[in-house]
Amino acid sequence: MGSFKIQNNKILDQVEVKLGDRTYDIVIGNNLIEELEIYNLSSSEQIVIITDEVVSPLYLQKITNALGRLGFAFFSITIAAGETQKSLDNVGKIVGKLLSKKVSRDAMIIALGGGVVGDLAGFVASVYQRGIKFLQVPTTLLAQVDSSVGGKTAVNHSLGKNMIGAFHQPKKVIIDLATLGTLPSRELKSGYAEVIKYGCILDKDFFSWLENNVENLLNRSADHLAFAVKRSCEIKAEVVSLDEREGNSRALLNFGHTFGHAIESLAGYGVWLHGEAVGFGMILAAELSNQMGLIDKNSNERIRNIVAKFGLPVDWPNMDINQLVECMMVDKKFKNGNPKLILLKDLGVAKVISVNKNSIEKFLANHII
Amino acid sequence: MGSFKIQNNKILDQVEVKLGDRTYDIVIGNNLIEELEIYNLSSSEQIVIITDEVVSPLYLQKITNALGRLGFAFFSITIAAGETQKSLDNVGKIVGKLLSKKVSRDAMIIALGGGVVGDLAGFVASVYQRGIKFLQVPTTLLAQVDSSVGGKTAVNHSLGKNMIGAFHQPKKVIIDLATLGTLPSRELKSGYAEVIKYGCILDKDFFSWLENNVENLLNRSADHLAFAVKRSCEIKAEVVSLDEREGNSRALLNFGHTFGHAIESLAGYGVWLHGEAVGFGMILAAELSNQMGLIDKNSNERIRNIVAKFGLPVDWPNMDINQLVECMMVDKKFKNGNPKLILLKDLGVAKVISVNKNSIEKFLANHII
Repeated sequence: MGSFKIQNNKILDQVEVKLGDRTYDIVIGNNLIEELEIYNLSSSEQIVIITDEVVSPLYLQKITNALGRLGFAFFSITIAAGETQKSLDNVGKIVGKLLSKKVSRDAMIIALGGGVVGDLAGFVASVYQRGIKFLQVPTTLLAQVDSSVGGKTAVNHSLGKNMIGAFHQPKKVIIDLATLGTLPSRELKSGYAEVIKYGCILDKDFFSWLENNVENLLNRSADHLAFAVKRSCEIKAEVVSLDEREGNSRALLNFGHTFGHAIESLAGYGVWLHGEAVGFGMILAAELSNQMGLIDKNSNERIRNIVAKFGLPVDWPNMDINQLVECMMVDKKFKNGNPKLILLKDLGVAKVISVNKNSIEKFLANHII
Repeated sequence: MGSFKIQNNKILDQVEVKLGDRTYDIVIGNNLIEELEIYNLSSSEQIVIITDEVVSPLYLQKITNALGRLGFAFFSITIAAGETQKSLDNVGKIVGKLLSKKVSRDAMIIALGGGVVGDLAGFVASVYQRGIKFLQVPTTLLAQVDSSVGGKTAVNHSLGKNMIGAFHQPKKVIIDLATLGTLPSRELKSGYAEVIKYGCILDKDFFSWLENNVENLLNRSADHLAFAVKRSCEIKAEVVSLDEREGNSRALLNFGHTFGHAIESLAGYGVWLHGEAVGFGMILAAELSNQMGLIDKNSNERIRNIVAKFGLPVDWPNMDINQLVECMMVDKKFKNGNPKLILLKDLGVAKVISVNKNSIEKFLANHII
């Protein structure tokens, strides 16, 4: 298949997500989108590219040109952009398109875009005819370091984010760092929130490295981006390999997310970017950790400072505390209304801890003043 | 838990579905619905019973009384009856109810009803917060011998039946044969179509036994029903254990279903009962098998006769052949538009065979005359 060879310098790193017979690679490099050889497609399978209206004009043609050149059968579906597109309604519409094009169980879906496209296309792949294959080609930093890796797929319900979903691992994640060149600055910063998170929960050295390289990272230095993405993927791959279905340690990846999801949901999806809400959520979780005698004041401040340095919001939003806590209560990690938060014992050391609802309310009320 | 003991004579049989860490039992007996001990519930989990308006007045209270007596936290959701309820729209509505009641990931869904309730509730269980536990309590013959066993869950799309779904195994299947006493005769007959299918594809002796016991089975003789259900569950459990995700041999269970699904879909869901369409589909598949030199004329006629004896339709419906074949082409088992049918080499011996579209059209055109 194919008459070309990938220039070796295009692939920078390869990270394996070890999951038995569902093991797959995360391939990281530059200008990989048009390198079909990496995709491992079979000429006998139909290919459906799902993307959005923002990513489509930038990168869709790079894939379709390559697919056309090699004679693959393919078509593309372009959705509108934004978190509101992650809906059950869109699942029905996309399935309708697949059925009308007689897409079979052996087809391959390619999710080309950010977290919204990846989550929606991945969920469609997980339920279409009870599950078909898919590839993740994430084009935002957030998707590259987080949502495209680990097989979590979902759509939103009006009563909660990611409440309808599935664990469905991709066959491969193809990370083209060149796509970060066109990423709006606000989205780049939002992506860094998840990168910071990995340092907070599992790698103090990485956290320090991030502190020392904020400027290079915000200036999109190729080498720095490559390392930040690779290290994030390595940490996520390791966590997912140990606990695919979040029975246990995978929950640590939700550091900052319980507060963050509630902020996103209460503000209305799309008002806060996911990473912005997670960044602020990490500040809250770190402060609560400190108040509960877990991390020291210095670590707490380092977290607040790094979030601020990456240009993410650090000021309390104008939100009703009771409503916020109610939003937190529908969190998937809560058992029988017993709130569990990811808190820090140290930089690089996270733990799941039960905190009762009243304590959270009191903490937030004090925080606001 | 519980102060009662199940009278031993209530449980007649137990069939294991071997699937590694997802292994579960099918418990078969009389008046099991109110025997909570069989359900293996934990008092710490929320329980949500999903049922329909037909089954609810007959059996819901039997469960809720028992749950109430033992102090479980539970509520029930009753949907309208019928195949049209298996929709993405209903998935969204049920998820909304679960979220508004703050149902957590540790909750247990009980699907109480026929195939529609089992498929819909099972699919909700598979996607709610990326998957929660569920129990199947099938109350129709069709659900007891087929749809409740094996983990296939799905809803329909306007362009195809069961096109949106998941493999999600129940924690247990509780078959209360007493529920068959209230089953309308047309539904009982429809259920026998799937029972006949097991004989056709994998057990010639069972097929002969069915031929010799049509009257007892239609008269709902308790012993005969118990044996028919048990043997059907055994065969299905074995097939599912060998090939959970229908990569291979599980496809044999679709004997009669490719024609059957197309008939159901073209007629409009609910016009033909599933088993009626499958019964007629088996007649077509057997005749095609005979025309292709696979089974002999005698076996072919035995299949037509047994379908007729069970009171299932055997006359060609007034349907357009081209439209019917188009409906068949969206079948999940077809790779790249290459129709694959389950045909019989002998009674009790089935095989997946590629048949091209033209041959099917020609066969149907000849059949009609």
